Amino acid sequence: MTALTINRTELIHAYWRAANYLAVGQIYLQDNPLLLEPLKPEHIKPRLLGHWGTSPGLNLIYVHLNRLINDTGANILYVCGPGHGAPAIVANTYLEGTYTEIYPSIEQNAKGMKKLFRQFSTPGGIPSHTSAHTPGSIHEGGELGYSLVHAYGAVMDNPDLLAACVIGDGEAETGPLEGSWKSLAFINPKTDGAVLPILHLNGYKISGPTVLARMEENRLRSLFSGYGYEVFLVEGDDPMVVHGLMAETLDFVYQRIKAIQYKARTSNGSNTQHISWPMIILRTPKGWTGPKEWKGVPIEGTFRSHQVPLTGVREDPEKLKMLEEWMRSYRPEELFDNKGALIPELVNLIPENGKRMSELPYANGGLLLKELLLPDFKKYALPIRQPGTIESESTRNLGKYLKDIFKLNAKNRNFRIFCPDETTSNRLDAVFEVTERRFMEQIIPNDDHLSVDGRVMEVLSEHLCEGWLEGYLLTGRHGLFPCYEAFVTIVDSMVSQYAKWVKTSRELPWRKPVASLNYLLTSHVWRQDNNGYSHQGPGFIDTVVNKKSAVVRIYLPPDANSLLSVMDHCLRSKDYVNVVIAGKQPELQWLTMDEAIELCTKGAAVWPWVGNDEGGMPDVVMACSGDVPTLETVAAAELLMAYFPDLKVRLVNVLDLMSLSPLAYHPHGMSEALFTSLFTDTAPVIFAFHGYVRIIHDLVHGRPEPARFHVRGFMEEGTTTTPFDMVVLNQMSRYHLAMEAVKRVGGLSEQVPAFIDFCEKKLVEHHEYICKYLDDMPEIKNWKWGGTK
Amino acid sequence: MTALTINRTELIHAYWRAANYLAVGQIYLQDNPLLLEPLKPEHIKPRLLGHWGTSPGLNLIYVHLNRLINDTGANILYVCGPGHGAPAIVANTYLEGTYTEIYPSIEQNAKGMKKLFRQFSTPGGIPSHTSAHTPGSIHEGGELGYSLVHAYGAVMDNPDLLAACVIGDGEAETGPLEGSWKSLAFINPKTDGAVLPILHLNGYKISGPTVLARMEENRLRSLFSGYGYEVFLVEGDDPMVVHGLMAETLDFVYQRIKAIQYKARTSNGSNTQHISWPMIILRTPKGWTGPKEWKGVPIEGTFRSHQVPLTGVREDPEKLKMLEEWMRSYRPEELFDNKGALIPELVNLIPENGKRMSELPYANGGLLLKELLLPDFKKYALPIRQPGTIESESTRNLGKYLKDIFKLNAKNRNFRIFCPDETTSNRLDAVFEVTERRFMEQIIPNDDHLSVDGRVMEVLSEHLCEGWLEGYLLTGRHGLFPCYEAFVTIVDSMVSQYAKWVKTSRELPWRKPVASLNYLLTSHVWRQDNNGYSHQGPGFIDTVVNKKSAVVRIYLPPDANSLLSVMDHCLRSKDYVNVVIAGKQPELQWLTMDEAIELCTKGAAVWPWVGNDEGGMPDVVMACSGDVPTLETVAAAELLMAYFPDLKVRLVNVLDLMSLSPLAYHPHGMSEALFTSLFTDTAPVIFAFHGYVRIIHDLVHGRPEPARFHVRGFMEEGTTTTPFDMVVLNQMSRYHLAMEAVKRVGGLSEQVPAFIDFCEKKLVEHHEYICKYLDDMPEIKNWKWGGTK
Repeated sequence: MTALTINRTELIHAYWRAANYLAVGQIYLQDNPLLLEPLKPEHIKPRLLGHWGTSPGLNLIYVHLNRLINDTGANILYVCGPGHGAPAIVANTYLEGTYTEIYPSIEQNAKGMKKLFRQFSTPGGIPSHTSAHTPGSIHEGGELGYSLVHAYGAVMDNPDLLAACVIGDGEAETGPLEGSWKSLAFINPKTDGAVLPILHLNGYKISGPTVLARMEENRLRSLFSGYGYEVFLVEGDDPMVVHGLMAETLDFVYQRIKAIQYKARTSNGSNTQHISWPMIILRTPKGWTGPKEWKGVPIEGTFRSHQVPLTGVREDPEKLKMLEEWMRSYRPEELFDNKGALIPELVNLIPENGKRMSELPYANGGLLLKELLLPDFKKYALPIRQPGTIESESTRNLGKYLKDIFKLNAKNRNFRIFCPDETTSNRLDAVFEVTERRFMEQIIPNDDHLSVDGRVMEVLSEHLCEGWLEGYLLTGRHGLFPCYEAFVTIVDSMVSQYAKWVKTSRELPWRKPVASLNYLLTSHVWRQDNNGYSHQGPGFIDTVVNKKSAVVRIYLPPDANSLLSVMDHCLRSKDYVNVVIAGKQPELQWLTMDEAIELCTKGAAVWPWVGNDEGGMPDVVMACSGDVPTLETVAAAELLMAYFPDLKVRLVNVLDLMSLSPLAYHPHGMSEALFTSLFTDTAPVIFAFHGYVRIIHDLVHGRPEPARFHVRGFMEEGTTTTPFDMVVLNQMSRYHLAMEAVKRVGGLSEQVPAFIDFCEKKLVEHHEYICKYLDDMPEIKNWKWGGTK
Repeated sequence: MTALTINRTELIHAYWRAANYLAVGQIYLQDNPLLLEPLKPEHIKPRLLGHWGTSPGLNLIYVHLNRLINDTGANILYVCGPGHGAPAIVANTYLEGTYTEIYPSIEQNAKGMKKLFRQFSTPGGIPSHTSAHTPGSIHEGGELGYSLVHAYGAVMDNPDLLAACVIGDGEAETGPLEGSWKSLAFINPKTDGAVLPILHLNGYKISGPTVLARMEENRLRSLFSGYGYEVFLVEGDDPMVVHGLMAETLDFVYQRIKAIQYKARTSNGSNTQHISWPMIILRTPKGWTGPKEWKGVPIEGTFRSHQVPLTGVREDPEKLKMLEEWMRSYRPEELFDNKGALIPELVNLIPENGKRMSELPYANGGLLLKELLLPDFKKYALPIRQPGTIESESTRNLGKYLKDIFKLNAKNRNFRIFCPDETTSNRLDAVFEVTERRFMEQIIPNDDHLSVDGRVMEVLSEHLCEGWLEGYLLTGRHGLFPCYEAFVTIVDSMVSQYAKWVKTSRELPWRKPVASLNYLLTSHVWRQDNNGYSHQGPGFIDTVVNKKSAVVRIYLPPDANSLLSVMDHCLRSKDYVNVVIAGKQPELQWLTMDEAIELCTKGAAVWPWVGNDEGGMPDVVMACSGDVPTLETVAAAELLMAYFPDLKVRLVNVLDLMSLSPLAYHPHGMSEALFTSLFTDTAPVIFAFHGYVRIIHDLVHGRPEPARFHVRGFMEEGTTTTPFDMVVLNQMSRYHLAMEAVKRVGGLSEQVPAFIDFCEKKLVEHHEYICKYLDDMPEIKNWKWGGTK
């Protein structure tokens, strides 16, 4: 069976030449785009930047996918893994007309083509990798490793979507990419779409060969069939042969995918037999059709074609000639008319409007976004008669709310939880009353809430959870990523890239808002009772806080009701990265739902039932952010008021961390007036913070007398110990806070020494209590008393 | 062939029972360690914590490796991947006597055993995962994913070492672990040791099954033989059968490894044919030998045995009885004498002193550390006649110094560079004059500096670079990790865990110092000329700065000579994490080598040849940290002095970031006296910083009048643009700095408006210059003028 007639092969080849021509043009030219005159030095950009090596392969795949769309009407999302593949992808979106529709000044004529070339990798222009600017893309091509996981996230609950995911052999060496192959163990052909991985082995990274490219074919086949794929190899360096092979293979794998889906969608019951999904390994030369060599040194097929294969073209007439020959080898005069428009025969190869990959609505997920149906969160409120009198696990309560979200959106199938095997551990197991963990490999009787239709995606890989969720959100759905706080830093760099994507998307009016990326960080630094030091790390806050302020928000609800209110807010929001940090252990509950809502609305508030300043000027402000810091601060305030009845104490709880920021730096930042109404402008502030103290020092910089803020937080003292010992080790205990307060407040001199004695005695008692556990094992004991400094 | 006689099998089984008994004891008991009396509630710990599920498998592997050591004299490093495997590993190190040698109060008798049990997962005790406390370990068992990469790093250049690496099937789902399998493409049997991966499929993570455990055997074999391994399966739930299989298999794979090594070590020439190294897949029940079920619900072999398989033992007599039966099933009375010492027949199974895995010197690398031989870095100095007159690529100069390090240490074979395919891109290619990139797959004629003996480890995986280097350092060698600044954040969480390890090691006198973990971050945020926003991220500083201050140091050398001096310092240091950030692009050079050394020694210094305060009181301090900020600040200072001849300007360069910290918080912190001698205590300070401004705001918190520090840095404005445009976009240009200065200094009112006009005009000119690139493409342009706010 041959998918192409000879004539069609030639047309496809011509289209490929056009795309290749445009890719080279973007790298080299600032004028004379159609080569209507001989190439002169002044037509060449002053600085040559961009990546040629991967481009011809990406173009080849693109035109063949177009052919497949024309023949089948498939909805295909092109996920471009190779880092700097923009010359190819942009070329294709330009050929399709979408680029001009979005950016009208890049017209489909010589003038527009010149602009297309000039803007590429040029100051103020577009980057040399795919980005939010690129129509049809949901994937930033800068940091490598996430193409396949994005593709899998995109097809979940999108049964009519086929994500063709091109993976460069460089990217294929990264851990996250290698970890993504097993995603197919979570894809249900009945209700999910399909991913077609196309591993493009062109042999080299920047300088060295890739491991996969040097494997013998039998090992490649063995590796990927082990992962569960049916491997199809397309290999060659003769374009006409490769066109034939590629078309035939694409037809075949497409039929295979349709057959898998048909079988699953027409059968009853849930089949958990392993399904072997097709994938393509495409082996073509790096920099294919580019310069073969330069003075005897090979370029095509080697790492030397990775970026700009011929440099110094402007200065060297011989190289200029070679570039011209190279560009003319695509015979642009046969591809574009003399005004620069693609000839009609090639326009015919473009899929009809609505089907072009560059305008696929899935790649602009906001277009498809259905609002998440949310129950009234107030229904789940814990009844609070008096603050601090009942204990509850805040996340367990949230689980009931999440359960009802699954119920309400069951029909829409647009909400999932992504979590590294910790849903139960994080006390969210109420959701298992209405859904299960997704698993497509063998399921056996003793498995716990496991099914082929589950909407809880548990895999022991933070990278997969993050990447799947990103792909799921960017194609217009909703999700939540609950994670152990320490281990979410595994995806520090991913969230940084995602925040960049969101910032850039927001600047592009044609990109429609998508649901926010929501983290629920629990099992946090202060309550790692048995896990110890390796599990204690609040650094994710620091990563997120530095991102563009309009994009990120960080919430530290102190109890169950405020957690509900915050989460409702986050799940309704769009185009944000929301980080919510809340404990899973039993903890004192403080706020009624009304109070919780008020705190969430304001971001930070005085807790009048703790302090005694009664709206007057306090002598000291006891501030806190986070559940454990809140507990210690309330206790410290009580201690202070009991010992120093004349001392005016105010407690301020900060739930929305960015509310501390000046308004100029964050949209949630509070005004100077509100800031001083909470913290005064002169009183000492003792601030107990969930994370590292640096952030608070920064956030109050520029506020009145920032030196009066004395911040306590995690100082990397941790071990396997009691929750209270943790706050002692890190000098954030009630006693440390209270001692700090009396030292900072003037006019208490008489009583102070006795109070310090009292606090220190309490700490020594605590020390003895801890030592009691171990009798006398000085060699093993980490514990040391932090003293009162 | 059977490796074991029947008698020996029974002894091994008995030893395994002893280890299992001790593992259970650690989880449950606080008294009655030998069960000399019936178990009572008060013998049970008040809170039951720990992980049973993985322990029997780990113990099985341990005793069988002991047997192999006894028979062969092999040096075996036990790398324990399963996260919470401490009950098993600690039990074995205790049986071997090493634990008691290191921690004398944990005696090898009933009293010591009781302490052993009590300290486990108890306040102030030891964590439930392997850690620096665990003798014989180089691997923290908290954050999963790095066991295999650590094992591979450990065996590099250690030809006599065999790392037996146990990988849990949970951990095997992480991206970094999946990415580690291909490490064998970088291991040369001639000069490196060997890794024996033992993939332990016990079926479950915390709650769900693992993907690998549910794969059919043929897929498992296919997958791992694709990766290049020869797979040996050991499977069963009958201990006696498994003992036999395991012993036989270990003998077989050990011989296989020796044969591979013998062949490589006795042949001449470099063989680059793929070598199939053996690995073992061990499939045994989770929680093997533990409780079978509770009231009809299965425990053994299911996720329910992951942590504490029987809870509420103290309260429930029936459960207490079951625990007692479980513990007595190991027949402790046959294993330990009535004083609690292991019986002599079992002591005989312990490898002789010097060979016990728990005392392996490789696992306490400081014992083996040879000083790195360093050339005199001053020899590589750039000659500087006058500051700011010549341009040079600072990292290229460093490359020459690194080249000579390779030469000097060629015989010792104890220095490597680990880098994601960027050695040349980072301008360090001088090293290729004396060494190559390491590669063990096929090498073809056109490859560039590629060999089986290369000491530059290039793989497109920051995880592998980091993990290999960690393993290499912890076994007593030296290394450097050059990386693109933005993408080093991929290993944020790894460096956090490593810093924890170093902090803990330092508290343990028996752990000897190892060489520091040295990063060279280049291709940094300010010089991503064509790469654009995705490549712009200075967040690694923020991650590192929060780690325990005694462990981390951050250096921002402004030029080539200071980079040399800093790098020399870092390569000599021990037990630190050193981050050095330096540009690779041509940049102005400032300091003679003597001046550079002085700056490095002080951490921060006045540059008297820029300012005009001549030792007197300046009106404004222009401070900077980082190469690009330095350039802009020098230019800003010149502008100011030219326009305001009466204005006293001082320039302070901060090379050692932590020198800004109060001495109480960091050992490098400068005294108040030094701080005010640099920054005065009242003058406004305009601070241009390489990274996010928060860090500076924090570091100066508590210093005199911190509000006078006005910091500029990266504010997440980035695109593909010129270097100068980057500083404009982020409002850190010379004009922004100078305008900020005049606004902050009083008494300049007359001249100020004209100067502001001048600066703004310059910025508008710049804007026009950038726009010129693009003619008029408003839709695509990201560029916006930041104004003067």
